[in-house]
Amino acid sequence: MTPEEFRVAAHVLVDWIADHRARIADLPVAARVAPGEVAAALPAQAPERPEPFAAVLADLERVVVPGVTQTQSPHFFGWFPSNASAASVLGDLASSGLAALGITWASAPALTEVEEVVTEWLRELTGLPAGWRGAIHDTASTACLVALLAARERASGLSQNRGGLQSEPAPLTVYTSPEAHSSVGKAALLAGFGAANVRHVDVDPRTRAMCPDALAAAMEEDLAAGRRPAAVVVAVGTTGTTAIDPLADLAPIAARYGAWVHVDAAMAGSALLLPERRWMIDGVESADSLCWNPHKWLGTVLDCSLLYVRDPAELISVMSTNPSYLRSSADGEVTQYRDWGIPLGRRFRALKLWFHLRLDGVEAIRVRLRRDLANAAWLAAQVEQAPDWRLVAPLTLQTVCLRHEPADLLDADGATSDELDRHTLAWVAAVNGSGRAFVTPSLLDGRWMVRVSVGAEATEREHVAALWALLQEAAVAAGRAPAG
Amino acid sequence: MTPEEFRVAAHVLVDWIADHRARIADLPVAARVAPGEVAAALPAQAPERPEPFAAVLADLERVVVPGVTQTQSPHFFGWFPSNASAASVLGDLASSGLAALGITWASAPALTEVEEVVTEWLRELTGLPAGWRGAIHDTASTACLVALLAARERASGLSQNRGGLQSEPAPLTVYTSPEAHSSVGKAALLAGFGAANVRHVDVDPRTRAMCPDALAAAMEEDLAAGRRPAAVVVAVGTTGTTAIDPLADLAPIAARYGAWVHVDAAMAGSALLLPERRWMIDGVESADSLCWNPHKWLGTVLDCSLLYVRDPAELISVMSTNPSYLRSSADGEVTQYRDWGIPLGRRFRALKLWFHLRLDGVEAIRVRLRRDLANAAWLAAQVEQAPDWRLVAPLTLQTVCLRHEPADLLDADGATSDELDRHTLAWVAAVNGSGRAFVTPSLLDGRWMVRVSVGAEATEREHVAALWALLQEAAVAAGRAPAG
Repeated sequence: MTPEEFRVAAHVLVDWIADHRARIADLPVAARVAPGEVAAALPAQAPERPEPFAAVLADLERVVVPGVTQTQSPHFFGWFPSNASAASVLGDLASSGLAALGITWASAPALTEVEEVVTEWLRELTGLPAGWRGAIHDTASTACLVALLAARERASGLSQNRGGLQSEPAPLTVYTSPEAHSSVGKAALLAGFGAANVRHVDVDPRTRAMCPDALAAAMEEDLAAGRRPAAVVVAVGTTGTTAIDPLADLAPIAARYGAWVHVDAAMAGSALLLPERRWMIDGVESADSLCWNPHKWLGTVLDCSLLYVRDPAELISVMSTNPSYLRSSADGEVTQYRDWGIPLGRRFRALKLWFHLRLDGVEAIRVRLRRDLANAAWLAAQVEQAPDWRLVAPLTLQTVCLRHEPADLLDADGATSDELDRHTLAWVAAVNGSGRAFVTPSLLDGRWMVRVSVGAEATEREHVAALWALLQEAAVAAGRAPAG
Repeated sequence: MTPEEFRVAAHVLVDWIADHRARIADLPVAARVAPGEVAAALPAQAPERPEPFAAVLADLERVVVPGVTQTQSPHFFGWFPSNASAASVLGDLASSGLAALGITWASAPALTEVEEVVTEWLRELTGLPAGWRGAIHDTASTACLVALLAARERASGLSQNRGGLQSEPAPLTVYTSPEAHSSVGKAALLAGFGAANVRHVDVDPRTRAMCPDALAAAMEEDLAAGRRPAAVVVAVGTTGTTAIDPLADLAPIAARYGAWVHVDAAMAGSALLLPERRWMIDGVESADSLCWNPHKWLGTVLDCSLLYVRDPAELISVMSTNPSYLRSSADGEVTQYRDWGIPLGRRFRALKLWFHLRLDGVEAIRVRLRRDLANAAWLAAQVEQAPDWRLVAPLTLQTVCLRHEPADLLDADGATSDELDRHTLAWVAAVNGSGRAFVTPSLLDGRWMVRVSVGAEATEREHVAALWALLQEAAVAAGRAPAG
């Protein structure tokens, strides 16, 4: 495809995207296809001859659009926000068009230095300590793995350069909340610690945040048994209920044992742009790393996850390679991001952050984040005031955890029941099946509840109000339906 | 930014990209900025208020373009090709605009199923065995880490679910070529094997490919010493000289010990679309995984690396998570790609492959790959016929490894010298500094040589001929300059 053919097709595609974004509030929110339906709509072989652009675009409309959940809809309240601001889409297009190759500073100095500049902008905007340095990874899962690898190597005195983890005399242990994201446990296993060495520290039953005393006790017990605490993963905003582990209390305990403290603020990190939310990471100066995802609430299109570290040398000592074909005269004085993470080749992801921040401006982003916090608080207040509805976890951010609990579905002592679980799953299925909104059912203490995660870029108060009406309507209708 | 504001700005950006691609042959190929120069050109803080799109675009032109190596230039012969076909750029734009969220099949069925379809297209096109399944990762570095984690867990009987690698009685060993990519050794260390358990197996001094006998001997030695062979990484196309390890001879040796065989064909994999090049992976049916990067020679814009496995269950048993908020009624019958790799959240990367294959067609891609092989062979023939020039490694693919060796810079016995190294680095610096082409110096047996990696999408015979003239001109000029 020549530049001129690209020009013609890209203009058509741009119009298609603008039109798609403009109509998105009217599309069914959830994907509406059965397993295998998308695959069956596509040919079994790649075409030998070029197809016209119109044919590909037609399939995008016919096959792909109904096959994805519309995360950009103002009626999307699922999982966590996955905003893709138009400004960041432009930045990502610039990145693809330019096609820079980030394998060493010298291959694309701008790729490295724009990343240094925008991560420094965001360090300051989120109140992280001066001197902390950031890099872009794909996801918080990967960032957590990188942090735990660094923790493993710190605790083992760089055992990877000798006999590896297998040669370590004492088992290394990792501590986290049972409410932490699934990727934390996965990262600990991938890093080789072993399930037997991952401690799920007790949480406060009310706040669902990690108990500092329980952490201290778990670490003492491991030390007494000849194990060595290597890492504590602190969840600032858990996935289920956005519970906020008390970093200021936890970090000093970890410090006593030299354990690496990684803060997983994947969702909540965006709120750090608001000075009034900085308390969430009080104590961060004693931590070692912090990750948050601009590709969630902030709205820099997937994939864009930031990992900040107090001391990049601890990453570099674990991740560094220096083959001859990547050497240059600038090596001593520049940042080599390949040594800060897993991949060698890096895309110019900083452009989407750069475009996003410059074209939207920080002030407007803060206004939007505060809007969402207020909308979530409004919804939580409605739930608290409504008969038979209950907030099942404290509102800490913008995700409202709720349940419809009509008295006849509770046990005699007011406890939840299997029948209530069936009711919850029935009405949430009705909501999501309606196409009018999308929310996420999730287990809490073994019972189903519903997470309403406010924060799609297009979501205004009217959309939250419409959702609340829809939830009530669906719950009442499910209550009237024959049990089953 | 509203959809209408996006429309206006995106049309301007599309024209900018088309114009940039159209002029690219005339731009200096190498980035021309000093360390810190890009960062210094940008403001120290993010803007509070939105900036006009024209200002951002002006900085893209002023700061970013001179700050990246023009990998899309027909004069780019550096590292390996990093093609970003216009068709794939369109697919990536569609992905960003649509902003689907891949965290579970149900969140975006099309994201999963288009990926299944295009990886199946490419499985068949590259002659991989029926039943092998592919997934898209960011880079071959990550894919190799995933393969070595699977290897570790196979060899240890899923030690991650118990006491981890630390609890293993016998050290687990990994075998690879000393000429393998730097990411292989890095992946082995990150997976926790330890440098003491990574074996660099001897290569044939002429072909630079791994010696099967040396592999067998190394494995026997380790077994005798109480260690357990866990993985063999076979390089089909090494980074330095594109040497091709003899998979058909190596895989049966690995199979004797149950070791995982990972084939790293990051660069060479594109050539598997040519039936006449399938011999490169003879024996693959006994391997466990193979990775290649469409973001290199094939030309699907970064980042797009394919990892094929014989049995996905071996990945899933190591990588799987299943939090309640990601469950759906379809779970039993669909692919959950989050369980095939490290990240949970996945971008809709399959669209760029889908657009690329459909808009360009396979036939045209094959024609281009054969053109590049012929151009590399032509250049190699010129080098062989030219006095004082030498091919320093056999041409196996499209990367020509050469040196200018005037007699007066060789030792009395015809051996290379420090003086020759200085000469090589001088003329390659002159080539790259001219802006007229870009090649990569690299060490081979401790001496500098020059890699000319043919295969940029725009590179025709005339560009290779111009490069050859430039190399000769630069080498002669460097020879005339005062030594030092």
